[in-house]
Amino acid sequence: MKKLQSIERISLNQITTGNWNLQQAVDGCVRQEIPSIAIWRHRVEEIGLKKSKQIVQNAGLQVSSLCRGGMFPAATEIERQKRMDDNKRAIEEAAELGTDTLVLVCGPAPDKDITEARKMVADGIEQIVPFAIEHGIKIGIEALHPMYAAERSVIVTLNEANTIAESFQPEHVGVIVDVFHVWWDPDLYNQIARAKGRILGFHVSDWIVPTPDLLMGRGMMGDGVIDIRKIRNAVENAEYTGPIEVEIFNETIWNRPGDEVLIEIKSRFLEYV
Amino acid sequence: MKKLQSIERISLNQITTGNWNLQQAVDGCVRQEIPSIAIWRHRVEEIGLKKSKQIVQNAGLQVSSLCRGGMFPAATEIERQKRMDDNKRAIEEAAELGTDTLVLVCGPAPDKDITEARKMVADGIEQIVPFAIEHGIKIGIEALHPMYAAERSVIVTLNEANTIAESFQPEHVGVIVDVFHVWWDPDLYNQIARAKGRILGFHVSDWIVPTPDLLMGRGMMGDGVIDIRKIRNAVENAEYTGPIEVEIFNETIWNRPGDEVLIEIKSRFLEYV
Repeated sequence: MKKLQSIERISLNQITTGNWNLQQAVDGCVRQEIPSIAIWRHRVEEIGLKKSKQIVQNAGLQVSSLCRGGMFPAATEIERQKRMDDNKRAIEEAAELGTDTLVLVCGPAPDKDITEARKMVADGIEQIVPFAIEHGIKIGIEALHPMYAAERSVIVTLNEANTIAESFQPEHVGVIVDVFHVWWDPDLYNQIARAKGRILGFHVSDWIVPTPDLLMGRGMMGDGVIDIRKIRNAVENAEYTGPIEVEIFNETIWNRPGDEVLIEIKSRFLEYV
Repeated sequence: MKKLQSIERISLNQITTGNWNLQQAVDGCVRQEIPSIAIWRHRVEEIGLKKSKQIVQNAGLQVSSLCRGGMFPAATEIERQKRMDDNKRAIEEAAELGTDTLVLVCGPAPDKDITEARKMVADGIEQIVPFAIEHGIKIGIEALHPMYAAERSVIVTLNEANTIAESFQPEHVGVIVDVFHVWWDPDLYNQIARAKGRILGFHVSDWIVPTPDLLMGRGMMGDGVIDIRKIRNAVENAEYTGPIEVEIFNETIWNRPGDEVLIEIKSRFLEYV
């Protein structure tokens, strides 16, 4: 397992620099020669889609993905339809922003029936795929850590994400491998191998000990217990050689000067990813 | 899935009343007619094994389990041997306290190699089983929630716990099903069925939303999203009809009057378990 020799595969997931708006994040990437960015929709909303597109295009940055669609399970048919409409908007936005991948955070159950919620996710994905194909957008199903099962996603293993994805052609629907979400899984390497040709994104951060918070407790690569390089190696054996998003939810990192964070990301990326 | 008609299967896991010492917890159970208690070793240490045994015996309480053995993976052979010795002491204590079950919290990895740590767990269990058999103690492997993989246990799915347990006779090694740890698992009901005849404990609490804390964020049954009754039904179909431990790590609950908590446990048990 060799170190990466350059930073050309780094993509800054915007959540990592949480105190920067899109313009600031794009400018930061340009200053630090980070070639790609992953964009969050709430940041696009702040300034509008048209301006967001201009900012990114003018900077010459690649957009590795748009985050996020999903949130399919809901208590009523009306609410589920609203979620569908929102997913279609997300697909349109992704296409407009020039990325080929929409990341899905699939959503929690509206009640105690997690099995039924999982069916709603599969149904929801089935409904949006034709629209995504029309717009040239691939759907990336992200398995979230099981500690988010009640609040963010009932899809909590790569096994589940693979099973749903396999109902579709690999050029239309795939999976996102985020080390923070999947590092604990005893079946991880089998599932990465199973996802061969279908991995649409690879996200890195670290699991720090003690873990300060469920949502905002991620660490910089190298500060935690995840064998990131081993997972990268498996992902590359499964034919993924695209951008590697650095996605760290951590308020302490947000509160540091953004350029300092980007400089650290670059060195940690070469050292630990 | 019927409600339980009596509180006769409740066992108070001592961690639920964290501000009570063993004497106070036992007295509380007696006052509230809760017939069983699950004991933690740090509470035994406070007053000594002999006195602990007397307190429990005098009260006529059953001891559903002793918590905990485990913590097998370690960086050095010397340290691993220390853990073995501690597990043997735990087995002796369990026998002395009159329970037939020692619960294992298997331990985190000493480094980034979670696969190797899992082997150390399997090896450790293999080493302690003969000693446990001599002392009439069953070993209950508890799968912990994956969010504890880095700090408490590399065994994070019932699948893994079952696989290790199946190397032994069911009367010697089994699994503990704790709803908080396993409710998210897409393979949960298959794995409970697989554990038929080998379930040595059933623990209840709830997963509250939003989750306030990784360790101390469990909720009272009924306050969260877990379909506890459905899981109990599966556990009973797998032939477990023993004590049901109420194990809630939550400082807000610790800070309430203990008897008030026990009274609530009884009503919530009948309503939601």
